Amino acid sequence: MTQTSYAVLEDRFRRLLALRDAEAILHWDLSTMMPPGGAESRGEQLAHLKAVQHGILAAPDMGELLAAAADEDLNAGQDANLREMTHQWRRSTALPEELVTALSRANSACEMAWRSARPNNDFAAILPFLEDVLSLVREKAEILSGTLGLGLYDSLLDAYEPGGRAEEIDTIFADLEAFLPGFLAEVLDRQAGQPPVIRPEGPFPVEKQRELGIRFMKLLGFDFDHGRLDISLHPFCGGTRDDVRITTRYDESDFTSSLMGVLHETGHALYDMGLPEAWHGQPAGDARGMSLHESQSLLIEMQVCRSPEFLRFAAPIMAEAFGGSGPAWEPDNLVRLYSRVTPSLIRVDADEVTYPAHVILRYRLERALIEDRMKLRDLPGAFNDGLEKLLGVRPPDDRTGCLQDLHWYDGAWGYFPTYTLGAMTAAQIFDAAKKADPAIEPGIAKGDFKPLLAWLRVNVHAKGSLYSTRDQLIQATGRPLDAAVFETHLKERYLS
Amino acid sequence: MTQTSYAVLEDRFRRLLALRDAEAILHWDLSTMMPPGGAESRGEQLAHLKAVQHGILAAPDMGELLAAAADEDLNAGQDANLREMTHQWRRSTALPEELVTALSRANSACEMAWRSARPNNDFAAILPFLEDVLSLVREKAEILSGTLGLGLYDSLLDAYEPGGRAEEIDTIFADLEAFLPGFLAEVLDRQAGQPPVIRPEGPFPVEKQRELGIRFMKLLGFDFDHGRLDISLHPFCGGTRDDVRITTRYDESDFTSSLMGVLHETGHALYDMGLPEAWHGQPAGDARGMSLHESQSLLIEMQVCRSPEFLRFAAPIMAEAFGGSGPAWEPDNLVRLYSRVTPSLIRVDADEVTYPAHVILRYRLERALIEDRMKLRDLPGAFNDGLEKLLGVRPPDDRTGCLQDLHWYDGAWGYFPTYTLGAMTAAQIFDAAKKADPAIEPGIAKGDFKPLLAWLRVNVHAKGSLYSTRDQLIQATGRPLDAAVFETHLKERYLS
Repeated sequence: MTQTSYAVLEDRFRRLLALRDAEAILHWDLSTMMPPGGAESRGEQLAHLKAVQHGILAAPDMGELLAAAADEDLNAGQDANLREMTHQWRRSTALPEELVTALSRANSACEMAWRSARPNNDFAAILPFLEDVLSLVREKAEILSGTLGLGLYDSLLDAYEPGGRAEEIDTIFADLEAFLPGFLAEVLDRQAGQPPVIRPEGPFPVEKQRELGIRFMKLLGFDFDHGRLDISLHPFCGGTRDDVRITTRYDESDFTSSLMGVLHETGHALYDMGLPEAWHGQPAGDARGMSLHESQSLLIEMQVCRSPEFLRFAAPIMAEAFGGSGPAWEPDNLVRLYSRVTPSLIRVDADEVTYPAHVILRYRLERALIEDRMKLRDLPGAFNDGLEKLLGVRPPDDRTGCLQDLHWYDGAWGYFPTYTLGAMTAAQIFDAAKKADPAIEPGIAKGDFKPLLAWLRVNVHAKGSLYSTRDQLIQATGRPLDAAVFETHLKERYLS
Repeated sequence: MTQTSYAVLEDRFRRLLALRDAEAILHWDLSTMMPPGGAESRGEQLAHLKAVQHGILAAPDMGELLAAAADEDLNAGQDANLREMTHQWRRSTALPEELVTALSRANSACEMAWRSARPNNDFAAILPFLEDVLSLVREKAEILSGTLGLGLYDSLLDAYEPGGRAEEIDTIFADLEAFLPGFLAEVLDRQAGQPPVIRPEGPFPVEKQRELGIRFMKLLGFDFDHGRLDISLHPFCGGTRDDVRITTRYDESDFTSSLMGVLHETGHALYDMGLPEAWHGQPAGDARGMSLHESQSLLIEMQVCRSPEFLRFAAPIMAEAFGGSGPAWEPDNLVRLYSRVTPSLIRVDADEVTYPAHVILRYRLERALIEDRMKLRDLPGAFNDGLEKLLGVRPPDDRTGCLQDLHWYDGAWGYFPTYTLGAMTAAQIFDAAKKADPAIEPGIAKGDFKPLLAWLRVNVHAKGSLYSTRDQLIQATGRPLDAAVFETHLKERYLS
């Protein structure tokens, strides 16, 4: 008996995703374990693994197989899987190989240049590299836009957020922008009347920090039979569904930021660990997109672990872990510490309230550049003007301005909005979860996360890529993304 | 301009070897870092990586390319590279895919059965699994034998020791077998008249053992920019030329065995680190074969690090590392400890003098089984009889008899002789090195291994697979493998 076209495709994608999983572990190793002298060979290994994956998607009979499978008798899950296969195939085969290679080279060259341009505060030095990157990214966007029938910006956004549309983002961000400045002023005003934040005094030995992180990870539901916690320069969540590798870095003078980083990555990990077993090795079993992924990390970090309920439970455990005592370790002080709002220059250090301003600015600038409504040489000034307008602080230099993030310099155009979409999605999902199961909130207050995880497993994690982000959000919360829920969360957290 | 066939082949093997390197890192991760729940997915990843590699070798135009390249104008290195390519292609494409799959399944099933059969001392339970393995291995040997024009046993040996021939092994092993019993009796007699060995008393904290191992690794020339030392259940040397990963395991009540294990793996690592840079990513840049690889680990462990010269240098460093003092830490005691000879049942615990007996026995048994001169059900008895005859000790059960090693049960038939070929090669190479550079021996006595490493780099490591094992040995030592050098070494070490 011959296989159906759909079955042939499942076999091919099983291999494709196994190779992608292998790549994920090799990436983790590169960031955590690899000695420096292994870098060049590792680059070779990853490039060949990528090329083999591309070769599978670009096989000459792939289009026919996808078309034939669409006429076969498929169930709903298989239909969704075929949709995801087709999407990957379209994106992967739309671009000529020379463009892909040129982009990869330009990104690497620009990233290398950025590594010195940023500390040297030298935008002029990186401008020619960035011109190359942008010109190739625009070329890519134009081709993808034609193939996929999407707008220029949407064709890039779609790589990170399948189905994402700039038009919807505009509406949501406009809503947020109208809300935030007034809200921020109120928050700062209220904060000024509160007792000052007292920082716990270290040193906090790495081993103790690690133990504490693992203790909370286990409480949250991280399964150490299927994952690890290690150290890397830039924390991330990597590995595979069955073997999730999260990382952090430790500062012995301050445990608070690494600990919250670990809990953030744990949120990503819980999503990966909960992806649908039945679709393992198929595109329908993948995580849905960056906004949903970020929603799961921010749900754990921002909604759960920075909440007064959690911090009152966690404060004595933190104090015990480091033998701390006194006012710095009081729950109320830790609540204030973990919800401090400060307009500042650096996105990655921003609090929950000011973070969206950083993202809105970047989204507008990158979209204007992609759509050729702005020139790259005007980026530094536009960046500084924009931040001042949105947040009331002005970068004194490009190092703390448009040079601060790697994204543009290594070609990740269209990524930025997913951070704030993720924050809003987190608020909306957590709100729905609490309403659906009244045991969730009291559970968190006593360190019992099982009700929350159970709800997330069923309503978010186990959906994989079976539905669009929008449909999944409607299934889980009853409505599409709505800035109002996020705004309500902010008001409750920072003004009540 | 079109590429030559040879250039096309180089491109294909570059990819093949990059994927094999990726596989090596994933194997290391599996043994050192992977949480248990990652096993199934990792199996998938490795199987697909293997299949992609096989697909490259089995491409329909491969035979034509190899034939066409043979007519092109190649230099000597390219000729050697083409020879290695052809060898890999022949071995890889000779076997029908169903046989490869059946063997892989039978090996896995038998290995799983072995894991309980050994502790349960239950040869009967594993016999049907082993029958399957052997029958498929014999089928494989028959096909390979026809394709490669080799004897049945040689066609298996050739996978581990390209160019290795049972006929030559017979001669060498017969020579050794004539020498060893009388020699062993003399050694035991002399040993009986020596002071007893005093074991240093622990505990020896893992961290201190690790530091000591790293200290000696660095002295020997292990480059930590291109490698790591980690922990695994079964110590090995893995990773890639540029990123060598060695492992050990620690026993806090005895540092001596783990330390020597680390030095053994360091010998393997130095070989990999010294493989020819210019041939990186091509078959000619690979390590030559198992006997030469084992010769490099045994050269470092047996020839260098168990020598009185090294141990007299190392003894105070060991004592200092653990704060040890007293007679157990005297250099002469450590020399006796590290050169103790005891006929015993377990191969992996055997000393240098009795080790060959374990190997000769296994070689003869596996060859008889492959050549159908013996039945598997007779293996346990033949094993026990053979060991008693060769070494004067008889296993009381199969657990300490024919069930002790994994090799036969996971399909590695034809591997055993390389251990003793390696030991003999080590003696012969070290002898030549000392004669070629008079600075080597005094260097070792004061912990300066640079002269030795420099000689090994040029005369062994940097040859990669450019020559046959035999030619390489002649280039380095002036003659083919000769049991006499090994015997002289044993006499000097144990009787003088």
